[in-house]
Amino acid sequence: MSWKTEKLYLTNIKGVKAAAVSCGLKEDNKLDLALIVLDKPAKATAMFTRNTVKAAPVIVSKKHLEKYGLVQAIIINSGQANACTGGRGIKDAEFMAEEVAKRVGIEKELVFVASTGKIGAYLEKEKIAYGIELAYKNLSENSGESIAEAIMTTDTFPKISGAKRGDAVISGVAKGAGMIHPNMATMLAFIGTNVKLGSEELKRVLKKSVDKSFHQISVDGCSSTNDTVLLFSTGEVLDKTFQKGLDMVAQDLAKMIARDGEGAKKLIEVIVEKARSLKEAKVIARSVVVSNLVKAAIAGGDDNWGRVLASIGQTEYSFDLNKIELYIGDHLVFAKNEPLGYNSQEVKNYLKGNEVRIRIILNEGRYSAISWGCDLTEEYVKINAYYRT
Amino acid sequence: MSWKTEKLYLTNIKGVKAAAVSCGLKEDNKLDLALIVLDKPAKATAMFTRNTVKAAPVIVSKKHLEKYGLVQAIIINSGQANACTGGRGIKDAEFMAEEVAKRVGIEKELVFVASTGKIGAYLEKEKIAYGIELAYKNLSENSGESIAEAIMTTDTFPKISGAKRGDAVISGVAKGAGMIHPNMATMLAFIGTNVKLGSEELKRVLKKSVDKSFHQISVDGCSSTNDTVLLFSTGEVLDKTFQKGLDMVAQDLAKMIARDGEGAKKLIEVIVEKARSLKEAKVIARSVVVSNLVKAAIAGGDDNWGRVLASIGQTEYSFDLNKIELYIGDHLVFAKNEPLGYNSQEVKNYLKGNEVRIRIILNEGRYSAISWGCDLTEEYVKINAYYRT
Repeated sequence: MSWKTEKLYLTNIKGVKAAAVSCGLKEDNKLDLALIVLDKPAKATAMFTRNTVKAAPVIVSKKHLEKYGLVQAIIINSGQANACTGGRGIKDAEFMAEEVAKRVGIEKELVFVASTGKIGAYLEKEKIAYGIELAYKNLSENSGESIAEAIMTTDTFPKISGAKRGDAVISGVAKGAGMIHPNMATMLAFIGTNVKLGSEELKRVLKKSVDKSFHQISVDGCSSTNDTVLLFSTGEVLDKTFQKGLDMVAQDLAKMIARDGEGAKKLIEVIVEKARSLKEAKVIARSVVVSNLVKAAIAGGDDNWGRVLASIGQTEYSFDLNKIELYIGDHLVFAKNEPLGYNSQEVKNYLKGNEVRIRIILNEGRYSAISWGCDLTEEYVKINAYYRT
Repeated sequence: MSWKTEKLYLTNIKGVKAAAVSCGLKEDNKLDLALIVLDKPAKATAMFTRNTVKAAPVIVSKKHLEKYGLVQAIIINSGQANACTGGRGIKDAEFMAEEVAKRVGIEKELVFVASTGKIGAYLEKEKIAYGIELAYKNLSENSGESIAEAIMTTDTFPKISGAKRGDAVISGVAKGAGMIHPNMATMLAFIGTNVKLGSEELKRVLKKSVDKSFHQISVDGCSSTNDTVLLFSTGEVLDKTFQKGLDMVAQDLAKMIARDGEGAKKLIEVIVEKARSLKEAKVIARSVVVSNLVKAAIAGGDDNWGRVLASIGQTEYSFDLNKIELYIGDHLVFAKNEPLGYNSQEVKNYLKGNEVRIRIILNEGRYSAISWGCDLTEEYVKINAYYRT
């Protein structure tokens, strides 16, 4: 029996309740605060942004999690990132945790805090306090979907994924849209499972999954101050194939983030095969999805494969042009160091679809990697020039 | 007496003739082929793209220059890059050199070849041969300006710079616009001087100048297959301060390239001060000018300084947020790890200008660096999505 993808909410995990409310951080009464509360403390691990500039909630959640390695409540707001806010920002993030801890009746170190939104402004604490109270009153087992909506910023759709194998379930929500780059991004993902895992195992499986999912996506090459992936386990069910299920859910969420990149119309999947090392495969795959020129060409439906070669030539890894085979979809466009007389119109038609696959066979070794990104459209510039995120 | 900037053409150097013609590589009878011929062989050195994917003219010119370290003719075409064209591309680049050598009556190794334009298509040799013949017939001492025009691709203005100190002159032309990134770009620059320099000295001064000019600019983070900077010296005049003059000309041309980035409306100058090393200062300065989010914010006139901090936090270098001072123009917007209550409207007004200066004082050491880039506009996407370059 293998893991099957299924749209599962975090609240489908036994003992998990949630609520999403609007407390006025975002305009137009949009949902902007999510609270997730577990019946009991759950083992948890998290990975955070590697950006030197870390937002206050990142610093606070890391500290909290280090105390027990457990989480019983998760509080997330959108609209304000609480980043670059100095000592006051730290206090504000602690305040969020304390407000939740007080209501749930737990230690504040069992509360995990995340924020996303505009950098460089102080949190509106009154609104947050009001939101927490409202959310706590509204906790239920039926609000799994609205959580995904409440953590959105410039996302155009909520990102929910799950997988099931017998009684074992994994469920995750994520947000992305901008500042999305390897080493995560302004992306938040919260994944829960009922599968029983040791503390070290939890860390190991999360890192493994993140390395081939969230670390392999890029929207704009910009990594963020708030990136967070949390994994918690309520530990009710035994399952030896958990890694496989987690990989599925993490990759599914990562692809949703890439597809929903700011202004994006297309998901780009880049597959690198036969590299000399896994790292080489990963770096080369990512070099394509971060190239503004490749992304713009795909937005315009232009079969400009020269830009793909130029982008992979920009990494620290050298390769032999005589050995490379380059595919756009199923069309071989470059091999043996010569442009090929392929049917350009057919490739242009392929590029009109909303998923574009680029396959690069290096023929240097035996390692493969995949990365995901999106096209670069005028809309991306509009969003980031005229609307603050 | 110090070097003075002056608009000087390559043909202002004694013994240099040039011609620019249209031979049909670009549409609308635009100039697309430039020929520069010197009375005598001149000492020369060049720096080329570090992209693994090197265009044929790069490979050929490198080989030619290695033979004698001399150049007597320079042939440049725009419209077709002769990149990713395999063995046939090499032969085509050699063909360009041979056609010139034949007419001028010199060895082909004294001919330097450069191409810029669309990647992945074979050169139209007949048109080039015709163009070379036409250009040879039209060589004159008065066509310095048209050279800069003939090497343009998506450039919106020709890039010419020069400096003078007594009898000593330096003159350069360049092109840029897209695929512009540290380690040069689809940028070509040809700089000549009458100052006498040893062969090793020539290499050393060029590297030094390029490191603080062309290597510090970025338009789109994409490095190209054809990047080339050539420096030649006719060796007529003695001048011990040549490096200073060359720095001026190289930085002037580099800034023109950044300012004229595809779709750009603004030049962005990023100054990093008090870094622990020169490399750190350079890397951090460049991390700002390559950030799509910073560039888009500046396009929209948004004083979104959080994006500047996030972009510098993305490098391998760590720093202490408590020590950083961040200026937009003359406005201090972040210091002591706190957002400051500056006048946002004044900063927005400043951002309306066509030159934006960002100054980052790290307060960690004593090294400084500057980088230049441009804003990211919808026009950039249009150019790269719908028009091939």
